[in-house]
Amino acid sequence: MNPSATRSSVDTVSGLLDNLSGIGRDVRRGGYTRPVFSTPETDLRSWFISQAEQRGLDVTTDRNGIIWAWWDTDSGVRTDAVATGSHLDSVQGGGEFDGPLGVASALVAVDILRSRDIRLRRPLALAVFPEEEGSRFGVACLGSRLLTGALDPDKARNLRDPDGNTYADVASAASQDPRFLGRDPKTLGRLGVFVELHVEQGRGLVNLNQPVAVGSSILGHGRWKLSVHGQGNHAGTTLMSDRRDPMIAAAKIVVGIRDTARNYRGARATVGRVQPVPGGTNVIASRVDLWIDVRHPRDDITATLVESIHLNAQVLAAEEDCTVTFDTESLSPTVHFNPRLADRLSSMLPGAPVLDTGAGHDAGVLAAHLPTAMLFVRNPTGISHSPEEGVEDQDAGAGALALADVLAGLLTEEGDAASPR
Amino acid sequence: MNPSATRSSVDTVSGLLDNLSGIGRDVRRGGYTRPVFSTPETDLRSWFISQAEQRGLDVTTDRNGIIWAWWDTDSGVRTDAVATGSHLDSVQGGGEFDGPLGVASALVAVDILRSRDIRLRRPLALAVFPEEEGSRFGVACLGSRLLTGALDPDKARNLRDPDGNTYADVASAASQDPRFLGRDPKTLGRLGVFVELHVEQGRGLVNLNQPVAVGSSILGHGRWKLSVHGQGNHAGTTLMSDRRDPMIAAAKIVVGIRDTARNYRGARATVGRVQPVPGGTNVIASRVDLWIDVRHPRDDITATLVESIHLNAQVLAAEEDCTVTFDTESLSPTVHFNPRLADRLSSMLPGAPVLDTGAGHDAGVLAAHLPTAMLFVRNPTGISHSPEEGVEDQDAGAGALALADVLAGLLTEEGDAASPR
Repeated sequence: MNPSATRSSVDTVSGLLDNLSGIGRDVRRGGYTRPVFSTPETDLRSWFISQAEQRGLDVTTDRNGIIWAWWDTDSGVRTDAVATGSHLDSVQGGGEFDGPLGVASALVAVDILRSRDIRLRRPLALAVFPEEEGSRFGVACLGSRLLTGALDPDKARNLRDPDGNTYADVASAASQDPRFLGRDPKTLGRLGVFVELHVEQGRGLVNLNQPVAVGSSILGHGRWKLSVHGQGNHAGTTLMSDRRDPMIAAAKIVVGIRDTARNYRGARATVGRVQPVPGGTNVIASRVDLWIDVRHPRDDITATLVESIHLNAQVLAAEEDCTVTFDTESLSPTVHFNPRLADRLSSMLPGAPVLDTGAGHDAGVLAAHLPTAMLFVRNPTGISHSPEEGVEDQDAGAGALALADVLAGLLTEEGDAASPR
Repeated sequence: MNPSATRSSVDTVSGLLDNLSGIGRDVRRGGYTRPVFSTPETDLRSWFISQAEQRGLDVTTDRNGIIWAWWDTDSGVRTDAVATGSHLDSVQGGGEFDGPLGVASALVAVDILRSRDIRLRRPLALAVFPEEEGSRFGVACLGSRLLTGALDPDKARNLRDPDGNTYADVASAASQDPRFLGRDPKTLGRLGVFVELHVEQGRGLVNLNQPVAVGSSILGHGRWKLSVHGQGNHAGTTLMSDRRDPMIAAAKIVVGIRDTARNYRGARATVGRVQPVPGGTNVIASRVDLWIDVRHPRDDITATLVESIHLNAQVLAAEEDCTVTFDTESLSPTVHFNPRLADRLSSMLPGAPVLDTGAGHDAGVLAAHLPTAMLFVRNPTGISHSPEEGVEDQDAGAGALALADVLAGLLTEEGDAASPR
């Protein structure tokens, strides 16, 4: 780090986020729409780089588009860095805090560590991951999946956004060279532990009346695409009795998915995206595509539930003389965070409850490669992926302080002791 | 007309359409996607202008974007022209013939009239109407509605396509001045009768084993937008029991619409377009918009059916703790074509059956202002608004010949006798 660039002041999380409140607002849906490498997300990335540089951190963007801001020790490149961070992309019409809260809290945690004059025994890295939501290219945690080799770079390059742009083209336009996408053992090898702070996406902390929790696990989840094939035709000239309308079958299947999921305790199954083809008001669709999001703590139950959904869909489609095709788009088993690390976090944050989450995170992808942990900050509505998501200023401050305490604890110990592999 | 530009050859309809087969192909959906004023539709308009000019017709585009190609008599401007034509825009993934068949047949009919050396006693006009399908801006028969004053030009200017472009902007880009949109009594006043030839959008002619029919009426129809409002949330973190998912309510409503319509003999009700908001795979929608197309020969029954759909939707939404809003987007009563004109057509086309249609047409809009008629050409599949729509070359030829016979009959009589107002 460059000591001449360090600052003595401590920003507030809410103050930092206020600077972003005008970027990527979605007038139609409410909230924010900040797809990866769109103008709003690029503006947020630039803002992060500027904030990190103001704090004297060394900023680099790796070959998978992940931004890293390093506060190094003086002892050369090491393999036990403490990393923290989150993402800046959003779903369409998402909330203000999903992603940016973790990034802003990381910046404030640096300020707090500085103000405490802490001597690092391990490097600190702040990270911003691209396409965490998967809302533009359909694959969540794209950046961390590429970094760890969990996603084939050829598959990533050929992913298309709803406008038909490939990820390769969009990354190029954002000054990334798509030829270099893929597993990056050198960057990954520098990390000893990763802690992600995130707004809670449920009501656990509200119910417990606590501002901050330690994460225990991420529910297994997957995405499936189900297409219902029928007979496209004219809406005005085709008698009701002559129809093979895939929209009717798709509608029955949507209700069936919900009813099936209800039979599996703890399961969540959602259809949030539907696309009739061709999609005209005066046209009976020829095909309806549904995307199904399914989650359960037990991976065997997820598999059973999805199989049941598929079989049920075949029956419902046949009732309308339609057929279905069914494809797995992604599948992530349940991730249990490193229990020793979680225990250490709990010991540093007395009174903080331990909660699991149904939401996927880059921390869940990294967990297969290094000890990772999460902190959750209270969300008064419990609502997520919606403009109604919220965080009180005071809770945001408590979150940044908890993150600083955790980072301080990890940074002042030798890496090997702190982060058992 | 300019005699030096006339040709003695007679083109075939299939030959003319072959020239268009590469324009606006839809690789994803199959068939053709030619939205009004898109590059493909503009290319088709240019093709029509060139074809009309090759036939020595005087081409003008009126202030509503309707192209007129005139074969005038020598006796100055008259008010009893015989007009024919159709449209060149398509639904998304539509067939080859819906619209272009009527335009190509009109051109071939001119060739046939020329080859017969017919002396016109009334002018002939070939017309191409913009946005007949309403597939880009949501209002079908936009051009003829503007021409006749059935659509407020302010409303038209502010219509938006799915990308958010206004009709005013899109018309401007196509070199139309949107300030001059609206009722055009001068152009309308030149017309004495309008005959539209169209591919049949059902199996009437297949069942009767005939190539060409005379149209009797267009079923009344309307479009309604139904929005289901629930609670947007995260697909992974929200328990099934905590949801107010408008997608479930919308799915029940879609099935309910079909079941309700089945109770009304002759009714057709279709949901071909659905749009969840925000529409992410990992997001419980906050709102789902449905567009409902309803048609019935009796306008009072259409009204009753729609009211029943609305009431039923309220109940189904309430079951999911959701609410609905409901708006009429368009409503057209049943149109009965001029019976005397239909009788004249039938007498000119011995053996041609008389059929009604469930599809809207510009002829239906014009019918309130002048005697109009339609000719239908056999579609072997009976399927419409789909790549599977079809017309045999021989039937296309029979259609053009029938159109030429009808036009010849009308053009060689004095207007007042032929077209009773």
